[in-house]
Amino acid sequence: MQRPIRIDGLQYANWSEKIFRQMRKGGVDAVHVTIAYHELFRETVARFEEWNRRFERHADLIMPGYWAEDVREAYRTDRTAIFFGFQNCSPIEDDIGLVEILHRLGARFMQLSYNNQSLLATGCYEAEDPGITRMGREVIREMNRVGLVIDMSHSAERSTLEAIELSERPIAITHANPAFWRPALRNKSDDVLRELGRSGGMLGFSLYPHHLQDGSGCTLQSFCDMAARTADLMGPKHIGIGSDLVQDQPDSVVEWMRSGRWTKGVDYGEGSKANPGFPKQPDWFRDNRDFPTLEKGLRVAGFSAEDVAGVIGGNWLAFFENSFPPVPPLGASR
Amino acid sequence: MQRPIRIDGLQYANWSEKIFRQMRKGGVDAVHVTIAYHELFRETVARFEEWNRRFERHADLIMPGYWAEDVREAYRTDRTAIFFGFQNCSPIEDDIGLVEILHRLGARFMQLSYNNQSLLATGCYEAEDPGITRMGREVIREMNRVGLVIDMSHSAERSTLEAIELSERPIAITHANPAFWRPALRNKSDDVLRELGRSGGMLGFSLYPHHLQDGSGCTLQSFCDMAARTADLMGPKHIGIGSDLVQDQPDSVVEWMRSGRWTKGVDYGEGSKANPGFPKQPDWFRDNRDFPTLEKGLRVAGFSAEDVAGVIGGNWLAFFENSFPPVPPLGASR
Repeated sequence: MQRPIRIDGLQYANWSEKIFRQMRKGGVDAVHVTIAYHELFRETVARFEEWNRRFERHADLIMPGYWAEDVREAYRTDRTAIFFGFQNCSPIEDDIGLVEILHRLGARFMQLSYNNQSLLATGCYEAEDPGITRMGREVIREMNRVGLVIDMSHSAERSTLEAIELSERPIAITHANPAFWRPALRNKSDDVLRELGRSGGMLGFSLYPHHLQDGSGCTLQSFCDMAARTADLMGPKHIGIGSDLVQDQPDSVVEWMRSGRWTKGVDYGEGSKANPGFPKQPDWFRDNRDFPTLEKGLRVAGFSAEDVAGVIGGNWLAFFENSFPPVPPLGASR
Repeated sequence: MQRPIRIDGLQYANWSEKIFRQMRKGGVDAVHVTIAYHELFRETVARFEEWNRRFERHADLIMPGYWAEDVREAYRTDRTAIFFGFQNCSPIEDDIGLVEILHRLGARFMQLSYNNQSLLATGCYEAEDPGITRMGREVIREMNRVGLVIDMSHSAERSTLEAIELSERPIAITHANPAFWRPALRNKSDDVLRELGRSGGMLGFSLYPHHLQDGSGCTLQSFCDMAARTADLMGPKHIGIGSDLVQDQPDSVVEWMRSGRWTKGVDYGEGSKANPGFPKQPDWFRDNRDFPTLEKGLRVAGFSAEDVAGVIGGNWLAFFENSFPPVPPLGASR
């Protein structure tokens, strides 16, 4: 029997040949990679440039991902297709025209806000959530048109529900877990998850310890039972993995993620002053090599072989298929 | 009999629906459009954004051109495919990584220099031409790799001959004429034209009056006889049209082209203090509508029907076919 296509809905690592080889070892065919947290446009372009170098240097291990078809090409050629995304709308600055430019460069996911209020929407740590802004409505329409997926992983409840309703194409929460399992501002309410599933959207289950029941001590069984309960809530076609794996990064990176340039102080985000750095991964999900372990755990939790194949990659693949192509007429062979 | 595919190797207009309709009237299937003279990267991106708006608004008349195949698609669907280029290397600033970024955004031609010395090569109005620079050699290699065509229209003689030799793919002089017909620093020597043809490169004949014998008073016959003589020198497969048509532009634009930000004074380029603006087009080539007139003139000058089809578009099309695709491995479906 052929192994299923495996897709990770979000990672952010200090990329290296070592990690690309781990991806191959785990048979991960596609990864949505974060390339911007607070970066403005020109800074984001520099990230694309760095990735172009990696594609040139490691052409035997990785390839750029633009379309669902590239996942199949990666599977066939034993490589990992890299899809790009932003955890904030900073790369478009105040310029709606950059949505299409960045999609053309390869961006496929963009969060409307990251923890804080943005020009478009509210983040999950704000005290008040006034919902999608005027510019937010315009940008949602433009993202729908060009095929840039709306990601509400770090957004607040009302903004998220409004984004689901305003968007004409299904949206994603690429990396979060249900709040019923691990209450946290970053995890999602039943309401959000139900609306997300009903609208054809996708949830990627996070393996970041701050999103897990019992943190780094979370068990594989607890994680997979949570997945089964979420499948009951949303439907088994609307869930996947979005591991939020952060690998080999220095603590300065977690500081950039959380504090950017918006404070002169330190924001601890999901951490705390006593525990400011990256927490330890659970031992059953160290990195990309452990995707097959997840598959076994999901089977034990009662998922059928077909549903496991969906959760581990097939559902994301179907979502990529429908979400990335522009609405015509956007032009020619792209 | 079907009409031939028609391609213009360079235009720079104040774009409007009126001009797009003239393109359709003249049956011009593809145009290489200048979007930067002295613009830096971010300014150039703004030009791509403006074109994206035009593609959205005038999808019945124009479409973005990325590959030779798009010219055939435009022909089939009665539209004009727009290919982008820069008349200077300013869009890449000092960053070789921007070559691939800009190719991805749709750039297909870049001049290594515009009249003056650049970071890469020497322009045709400099007193000294030390040839291709250190960065120039690196950028030529990168342009070859990604499929961005080297254009030496405004470059000096030695730099041009060196670019032809250093480049592993044929280069272009998108808009100029032979100096034997109209001596001018912007027109090209027999040596350059011979090497260009021998290496598989392309010359686009300019219809900008400053490049024409007798300027605005040039006759169609004189122009077509010159084309025939150039075909003898370079071979009939290496010549096309690069009209350098500048339409509906205010004089402030000619000032930007010539003086950019490099002088606080005024540079008159090919004009003069007495004649600083855009000269009048010859009456047999007012604009895109007169492409069929050129075809008739070329026939009268002795070109076979097949060679006319080459000069009016077929030769550029073959050049696009060979020049625009990246050298693998550059990645996936693009």
